[in-house]
Amino acid sequence: MRIEVVKGGLCAVKGVRAYGIKEGNKGLALIEGKGKAVGMFTSNKIKAAPVRFTKRQLEKGEGRISAIIANSGCANSFTGEKGMRNAERMAELVSSSLGVDKEEVAVASTGPIGKQLDMGLIEKQLGKVVKGITSEGEGGKAAARAIMTTDTFYKEQVVSIAQTPKPEPQPDEKVIIGGIAKGSGMIFPHLGLATATMLSFIYTDADLSTEALGRSLKDAVDNSFNMIVVDGDMSTNDMVLLVSTGRSGEISEEDFKEGLNSVCKELAKLIAKDGEGATKFVEVRVRGAASVGDAREVAKSIVRSPLVKSSIFGESPDLTWGRIIATIGSSSISEDIEPSRITISVKSEKGKAEKRGLVVKKGEFVDLSGEARNIMEGKEIIIDVDLGIGEEEVEATAWGCDLSYDYVKINAG
Amino acid sequence: MRIEVVKGGLCAVKGVRAYGIKEGNKGLALIEGKGKAVGMFTSNKIKAAPVRFTKRQLEKGEGRISAIIANSGCANSFTGEKGMRNAERMAELVSSSLGVDKEEVAVASTGPIGKQLDMGLIEKQLGKVVKGITSEGEGGKAAARAIMTTDTFYKEQVVSIAQTPKPEPQPDEKVIIGGIAKGSGMIFPHLGLATATMLSFIYTDADLSTEALGRSLKDAVDNSFNMIVVDGDMSTNDMVLLVSTGRSGEISEEDFKEGLNSVCKELAKLIAKDGEGATKFVEVRVRGAASVGDAREVAKSIVRSPLVKSSIFGESPDLTWGRIIATIGSSSISEDIEPSRITISVKSEKGKAEKRGLVVKKGEFVDLSGEARNIMEGKEIIIDVDLGIGEEEVEATAWGCDLSYDYVKINAG
Repeated sequence: MRIEVVKGGLCAVKGVRAYGIKEGNKGLALIEGKGKAVGMFTSNKIKAAPVRFTKRQLEKGEGRISAIIANSGCANSFTGEKGMRNAERMAELVSSSLGVDKEEVAVASTGPIGKQLDMGLIEKQLGKVVKGITSEGEGGKAAARAIMTTDTFYKEQVVSIAQTPKPEPQPDEKVIIGGIAKGSGMIFPHLGLATATMLSFIYTDADLSTEALGRSLKDAVDNSFNMIVVDGDMSTNDMVLLVSTGRSGEISEEDFKEGLNSVCKELAKLIAKDGEGATKFVEVRVRGAASVGDAREVAKSIVRSPLVKSSIFGESPDLTWGRIIATIGSSSISEDIEPSRITISVKSEKGKAEKRGLVVKKGEFVDLSGEARNIMEGKEIIIDVDLGIGEEEVEATAWGCDLSYDYVKINAG
Repeated sequence: MRIEVVKGGLCAVKGVRAYGIKEGNKGLALIEGKGKAVGMFTSNKIKAAPVRFTKRQLEKGEGRISAIIANSGCANSFTGEKGMRNAERMAELVSSSLGVDKEEVAVASTGPIGKQLDMGLIEKQLGKVVKGITSEGEGGKAAARAIMTTDTFYKEQVVSIAQTPKPEPQPDEKVIIGGIAKGSGMIFPHLGLATATMLSFIYTDADLSTEALGRSLKDAVDNSFNMIVVDGDMSTNDMVLLVSTGRSGEISEEDFKEGLNSVCKELAKLIAKDGEGATKFVEVRVRGAASVGDAREVAKSIVRSPLVKSSIFGESPDLTWGRIIATIGSSSISEDIEPSRITISVKSEKGKAEKRGLVVKKGEFVDLSGEARNIMEGKEIIIDVDLGIGEEEVEATAWGCDLSYDYVKINAG
């Protein structure tokens, strides 16, 4: 099989139309595309109205979605009965505008918590969006822009998958997976089965069973969105939806999984890169853990630590490594840590010239005056931690960013 | 019984002498006072050499301590075999200087991780400290100053306890509990049995069994040091030691516990107030939880949230309450949360005039234009959360501070 990044955006998926507008900090996006659908939603115990509404839609509608409506500028969270009625009203408006079944409309929201939606504005904006909806490339971008809040750029990623046995498939034998996402702060997703203020809507024209779609989404989310941390705050609105229009034919579940993983990882990395106030992108790979769960836990603890993040912002390697050590020790993993087995290196990837600096070698700090210090001055930093407990292959990767003055400024309100 | 704050510092405890010096960022404190001792140490899986050394001392020396030596400016953490030898060497130096048993010397360190101690400097500084050691009030303050790192003020608290049945005891019938502490960043203590970079050394002249001392310390630490969060980073060096010289006679365990609780709570609050870059002190009380454990978890989650902390810094109440809601929902507690039962109010205590503002009433945001907004502009903010699940009395209190530009600046290195 061959995975290729393609242009054309979300609407490169056959059967998908999209559009969105943003007026001030209030945006509205609409995506149309009928098919089997699965979702993952926030595991926050307090779930926003659109999360509860969409979960219920997926459960009763036999897992089918015809359209997704998503607004930015108001989370419709902690809004009681009225919030639920408004989420339902959003679905009704889409139903009558597009002539689709109300039961098959998914609703998502992002923005401040505790305020009611301005339904008059939503109705007005929906009118404009329905007029603009298109299967052209611009449609997906407009939708991706409409759901931005503190995001500084829109996030979209699309790949085509050519299946393994066919060396040179015709264009129509490929299947497409395309997605958009938003997210910048309050990013510590922990998406359970059916999970936002990280939102991601992914479409594919591959034809797969609902079960295969569900398994693929869980696998992809666990390795992507669930491995990014901006601040460790978990939203009441996180949501990822995957819809299959089935317009391109079948594909093996294995090939599809790989393609979906690549789309979700890229979208997740874009969210980490756009973390509120971020000046540096940080990738942490943890190897040699007792289990993949432990590796994930340690990797996420490191990208979550305010002290590690501050010293990366300050380009202070001496402080950074000691703090990484403290963070490794404080992570809630099942196995004991043996300091003398820990090896840590840092690298940066710029084109093909890979630079690498060793900072801890089997429990001892090594000279930090060389390459490691240079790498810390870069914009993209890859930290590689070998715990030396289990097999090297028992690994996980997490993504995050530094903690800058601007994070505080953006969130001081 | 009657608990009164007394002057005279740590050395008001009979049988205790202390002193300390600070030269640049390298400080050394020495406290002498023989007696039964119990300790609680960091539960970080990577423990600094002094933590491992002192734990072992307490275990083999039948829980007796004659002196405590503590240095600032180097954590002696992640320093391998050499680090352990240096910790031991610190105990030997104290043993020969003061003529106490080497097995009864406790060692503590605080500072950056990953560097070896400058033993020459420590030996020189110890000479000066031994010359200055005193039972005068200045001694405890000098020791408290010597262990400061990014702390902006020294922390010392001493109380006298007059036992219940004696209405007007003579001065020598009272017992004294006195302690010093340091801590400012990397504060998220989680002290297990025998737990820095939060250090606290507490002495009492009350005569109690080692078991009673141990129970009292655990109870006090769980309600104080373990309930403060500056950044959510857990140190490899946290340590609290309690030593009883027994020079004043007996006291009921219950009365002692209450006295120790008051000392530990005050020291813990001083650490939270001195949180790195803090401009506001925040107290969060959670009531109506299903269990005290759940109440503690929710209270700590709120004071830990970078988003909540940033919006408190920014005096943005609208953002603060929504973020508190999201944090409540994301805390790892056993019970479900019912949004419609949550009530949140905020107050400030300035003298006797208590101001109070209601912000969430049984799941609904109330008008925020009034008192709540004024209170958020103050320097001390008390947030009261009633989850409405269990009895009102099922409660816990956590302490922390806001997240300011200066936290980032201090930690950028």
